[in-house]
Amino acid sequence: MNLFELERRVEYYEADVTGKLSLPMILNWAVLASKMQSDALGVGQSVHLSRGLGWIILQYEVKIIRRPEVNEVIKIQTNAAKYNPFFVRRPFVFLDQNDEEIIIVDSIWAMIDIENRKMARLPEDIIEKYHAERVKQIPRIPNPEKITADEETVFKDYHVRYLDIDANQHVNNSRYFEWMQDVISPDYLLKHEITSINLKFENEIHIGHTIKSEVFLNGNISKHRILMGDIVSAEAVFKWRNL
Amino acid sequence: MNLFELERRVEYYEADVTGKLSLPMILNWAVLASKMQSDALGVGQSVHLSRGLGWIILQYEVKIIRRPEVNEVIKIQTNAAKYNPFFVRRPFVFLDQNDEEIIIVDSIWAMIDIENRKMARLPEDIIEKYHAERVKQIPRIPNPEKITADEETVFKDYHVRYLDIDANQHVNNSRYFEWMQDVISPDYLLKHEITSINLKFENEIHIGHTIKSEVFLNGNISKHRILMGDIVSAEAVFKWRNL
Repeated sequence: MNLFELERRVEYYEADVTGKLSLPMILNWAVLASKMQSDALGVGQSVHLSRGLGWIILQYEVKIIRRPEVNEVIKIQTNAAKYNPFFVRRPFVFLDQNDEEIIIVDSIWAMIDIENRKMARLPEDIIEKYHAERVKQIPRIPNPEKITADEETVFKDYHVRYLDIDANQHVNNSRYFEWMQDVISPDYLLKHEITSINLKFENEIHIGHTIKSEVFLNGNISKHRILMGDIVSAEAVFKWRNL
Repeated sequence: MNLFELERRVEYYEADVTGKLSLPMILNWAVLASKMQSDALGVGQSVHLSRGLGWIILQYEVKIIRRPEVNEVIKIQTNAAKYNPFFVRRPFVFLDQNDEEIIIVDSIWAMIDIENRKMARLPEDIIEKYHAERVKQIPRIPNPEKITADEETVFKDYHVRYLDIDANQHVNNSRYFEWMQDVISPDYLLKHEITSINLKFENEIHIGHTIKSEVFLNGNISKHRILMGDIVSAEAVFKWRNL
């Protein structure tokens, strides 16, 4: 198993109003660690792009023990744990200076053919570099519980902005977190701290779209849905604790 | 004169769709360099906050020769060049690996009393640490040219989001760049590269507000205004070149 480690310091513009690392930055740093591992193993973006392939994330599970504060230095460890011909399961651990686990992320990745946006088989010569365990069945992350028809939701529309699109020409994954969090009232956000996220991506969003971020908030659980018209783009469940 | 230098690598989530450092990140890194210098000189946030004082930026001028690309490592140099009892003029230079200047920023800073949000005199014992030149008059950055009544503008409304507020409890300055850029059509943005910005802040924006980002685009010059109702929050002029 190839374990990769990255060190980062939380800068003021990476924190939210609480002075702690923002939710989108948790994802950005996780993806950064996996990118840097791929580069270090010689199978980075230039290698798979040259074959017309790109990595995509299908699902995230995030457990937050505590979010690091501005100026705090943390380590992010990751490895490609298990794979089968189509999927990779990649865990991440965020550790503080005392080597305490503060954030734990699990994720399921796949590769797509960039031209037709369809799932592609993982190339053996790329995947073997990670020294992952080959398995028949990738252990699944449970699906986030859906919003049901009788649950009264709150929603807001968000125009997909120019800066929501990153260098990969697609909406940066972390923006989904922003839309899902922002639809909850500031009053609730200031009185609660997030403890877990389970987010599943369904359909890609492009620039110029307007999306609807819908939430059903029930005590310390919020169920989320991102819609483009009638098409579900992502679903998630967040858990919260009172501050 | 105390020159401070900071090194940063452009990460994928800090780039826009062009694969180059986004406009908001230029500002974030400039402010980061000045914060780190203040910390290094022992007059960081904890020192001025304990006296009820905070730094604010009144105006920025940014000249962009080229924006660095994802994975590129650059240096950001800054110093507090000149000051008088109320203002500091602080330049920044972004240098690439060949020590070529790629972005040049100038800025005017002041201090405010955090309670009443009024301008405060700069404490001598803090300001002397920067070894700045004391001058009678701070050389001013020219005001950005205003939108006139006869100029036909385009505008969009932006709701101030939870994540627009940073750990200082105020809208992160760099969000103004995002609102000003986003109101321009993606078609124009993809065909033009920004070469300079002159941005002047007028009035603070708070969470929950909806702001209007207004632009008058004329060839390779765009004039911008951010409004909260009738109150002007910021004005700017951007210059562009064809790609």
